[in-house]
Amino acid sequence: MSHPGATASDRHKVVIIGSGFGGLNAAKSLKRTGVDVKLIARTTHHLFQPLLYQVATGIISEGEIAPPTRLILRKQSNAQVLLGDVTHIDLASQTVESVLLGHTYRTPYDELIIAAGAGQSYFGNDHFAEWAPGMKTIDDALELRGRILGAFEQAERSSDPERRKKLLTFVVVGAGPTGVEMAGQIQELSDQTLKGSFRHIDPTEAHVILLDAAPAVLPPMGEKLGKKAQARLEKMGVEIQLNAMVTDVDRNGLTVKDKDGSIRRIESACKVWSAGVSASPLGRDLVNQSGTEIDRAGRVKVNPDLSIPGHPNVFVIGDMAAVEGVPGMAQGAIQGAKYVAKILHNEAKAREHGTRPKPREPFKYFDKGSMATVSKYNAVAQIPLGGERKLEFGGFFAWLAWLGLHLIYLVGFKTKVATLLSWAVTFFGRQRGQLTITEQQAYARIRIDQLEEIAASVAEEKAAS
Amino acid sequence: MSHPGATASDRHKVVIIGSGFGGLNAAKSLKRTGVDVKLIARTTHHLFQPLLYQVATGIISEGEIAPPTRLILRKQSNAQVLLGDVTHIDLASQTVESVLLGHTYRTPYDELIIAAGAGQSYFGNDHFAEWAPGMKTIDDALELRGRILGAFEQAERSSDPERRKKLLTFVVVGAGPTGVEMAGQIQELSDQTLKGSFRHIDPTEAHVILLDAAPAVLPPMGEKLGKKAQARLEKMGVEIQLNAMVTDVDRNGLTVKDKDGSIRRIESACKVWSAGVSASPLGRDLVNQSGTEIDRAGRVKVNPDLSIPGHPNVFVIGDMAAVEGVPGMAQGAIQGAKYVAKILHNEAKAREHGTRPKPREPFKYFDKGSMATVSKYNAVAQIPLGGERKLEFGGFFAWLAWLGLHLIYLVGFKTKVATLLSWAVTFFGRQRGQLTITEQQAYARIRIDQLEEIAASVAEEKAAS
Repeated sequence: MSHPGATASDRHKVVIIGSGFGGLNAAKSLKRTGVDVKLIARTTHHLFQPLLYQVATGIISEGEIAPPTRLILRKQSNAQVLLGDVTHIDLASQTVESVLLGHTYRTPYDELIIAAGAGQSYFGNDHFAEWAPGMKTIDDALELRGRILGAFEQAERSSDPERRKKLLTFVVVGAGPTGVEMAGQIQELSDQTLKGSFRHIDPTEAHVILLDAAPAVLPPMGEKLGKKAQARLEKMGVEIQLNAMVTDVDRNGLTVKDKDGSIRRIESACKVWSAGVSASPLGRDLVNQSGTEIDRAGRVKVNPDLSIPGHPNVFVIGDMAAVEGVPGMAQGAIQGAKYVAKILHNEAKAREHGTRPKPREPFKYFDKGSMATVSKYNAVAQIPLGGERKLEFGGFFAWLAWLGLHLIYLVGFKTKVATLLSWAVTFFGRQRGQLTITEQQAYARIRIDQLEEIAASVAEEKAAS
Repeated sequence: MSHPGATASDRHKVVIIGSGFGGLNAAKSLKRTGVDVKLIARTTHHLFQPLLYQVATGIISEGEIAPPTRLILRKQSNAQVLLGDVTHIDLASQTVESVLLGHTYRTPYDELIIAAGAGQSYFGNDHFAEWAPGMKTIDDALELRGRILGAFEQAERSSDPERRKKLLTFVVVGAGPTGVEMAGQIQELSDQTLKGSFRHIDPTEAHVILLDAAPAVLPPMGEKLGKKAQARLEKMGVEIQLNAMVTDVDRNGLTVKDKDGSIRRIESACKVWSAGVSASPLGRDLVNQSGTEIDRAGRVKVNPDLSIPGHPNVFVIGDMAAVEGVPGMAQGAIQGAKYVAKILHNEAKAREHGTRPKPREPFKYFDKGSMATVSKYNAVAQIPLGGERKLEFGGFFAWLAWLGLHLIYLVGFKTKVATLLSWAVTFFGRQRGQLTITEQQAYARIRIDQLEEIAASVAEEKAAS
């Protein structure tokens, strides 16, 4: 493809890893610069993660929150989108290695923006993942949609009261925004959408438990809003168990250790994990090659300009970066992306004019506040007013604010209209338009990862013999 | 659950197998009868199959054409929906056996309506399925969505011109309505939706081939409309190969035998199979137990009242029934369902009043015509005018008729509005709202069936040692 002006080989090569809020916004913000942008991501879509719980609970379709990244960037001729799983960054040779279907590709960079985000953390117990999927990807959300609805289907066919109870007990681990939203939505799904559609079971008797090792709901939003959210959830019927630490998860339930040290069991077929995040392993890859350090959550300790020590051309933004006072939320990633793009823009201009670039000012995060929906017509919100002062409110007006903001931030006009329609149906009525599950999901077949492992070991055995 | 009037155990038990057009309409038509209806299906949803190709090509979401069957029947208190794969019908004991997650359930019936439909037929070459999925289920459509979009993604990263060509060659086998629709939509996807969104490849150079062993496109619609559809597809850029029989399908392409007996290869990564149907294996299960016969496509040869020989209480409807003059289309199944429901209704009333039921009149199919869309604004339609006369037309008005009819038949008001919106975006513009693919699909991981086979053999080996 031809580019106006300089040829592609002349131009500075900016490589971006990740298509989340950080990666996408970095690419967009580099639109009017002379640089050549390559965005490498593991998924073909940009995921609007704050609404992922609505895909999992059948309110919206995956297409509404996960448009293809390359279609968003179609008209930006200096940007190329590449599918691939980045497995290694070579700082010495300035190359990014990515893998797609067994092929390894090496992409050289002049400047690198790492925005690979964070995955679910099981705090060293990765075997929990099989029985309590996280809520980080479209795959996760569709898997959970299948498990939640599948549990009701199985309960309808079961005549064993214990099994039925286990199938109708849903446990959400982690009382952060995602956990609160999931618990509220599973409760509404059972009480409203599914009500009256079974003959042997009563879906409104489903038992939703929201559980956290911490002593509060929504800890980052402060005691007042946490209590508000808790009261609302409890009124809806969600059981909240605080100071409760999960010590084991298996097919049939969870083992929980309470504050007093006592151990108990919760029998539950369908578990959701939203208890912690762990930054992309690419951070660890950097540690081995430079003076870079990572924190306990795997986040990279960056310089004030978001670059890594000794490599002013390598930046880490979003959930992968450990920056004092910047929460792991969309705004942190977006602001980081725009900040780095501006640095690169200035430096590109300076190169062009043969002048010295302006010295980099440290990254400053502007806190626009945060919010979480609890249920239909109910949310909690926090807006900083400068200094230590904050506006905190909950209920209908917070929900309206949530609604408006999320609509504004959704990509594309069509998506806004489609989502508004999906919401209207669910909010004013009790229907949900996206309750389809595939056969594979309905039968909760053995997870593909397990099978791949088995297949790999079979292949190894064959190769050995 | 309590029922008004007679208790459940008193009532005649009607079991329906399948939630397609036949099964769902049979259940709905039995609403005002005193019978107890149990609908057992392998999926949790009712699939509006005529629009499945739009899910595969990213126009609409799976939720729009596959609402949960139990929500459609929620208010029909005499109907119960059960998830399960029916594995055996025992005519002697009047019991249906179904399996869900390893549990086998036995459901007794007084009357049985078998509407288990048809699957894709590979004419004895079932190993083709792995490399050329059919277009029968939501699973199929999402798998194909992943394969089609995945092929473009892989081509963008490939520097080998031969591999790129193979990835950008799409072959649709079978020039019936589904094949015509798929070929047209893949072409539009490449030419319009994806245009300009890649940097190394030009998606408009994708090569779509529609292939059939028969000498015509859309044979059941007659020569005139077949030619019209063919001309339109060719104008769009689809290559049509007739009298071409597929003799092998593998990962990298197809082997084709032409009319003159010569053999050739088509290199193609993404193949779609819509060449034939094969009725549910439940037909074969009946043959072993009664005087019932099946035809070459596995369809059950039924009596004029759609019952099977020697079992006036067992009916076969829809794609599973071989009835002279009834095509394997939604209308055949719907009319069969209503006809059987009426018989059961009459006989229930007769039982109630202690009278003799009216003798069963033979099933008569009323041909309402048929249609197929070819592309945006273009369809072909055939409407019988009585006798041998038929109104045949193609183009924009046929497309308008197609649009209106499909909207009317979609279940639910919300779905109609959502689908109209999806269509507006795609028809007036070139966008598509449902192009999301999961990571699993993006990487075209080894298919779960294969893996299950391997896993099963591993388990066997372990058990043996």
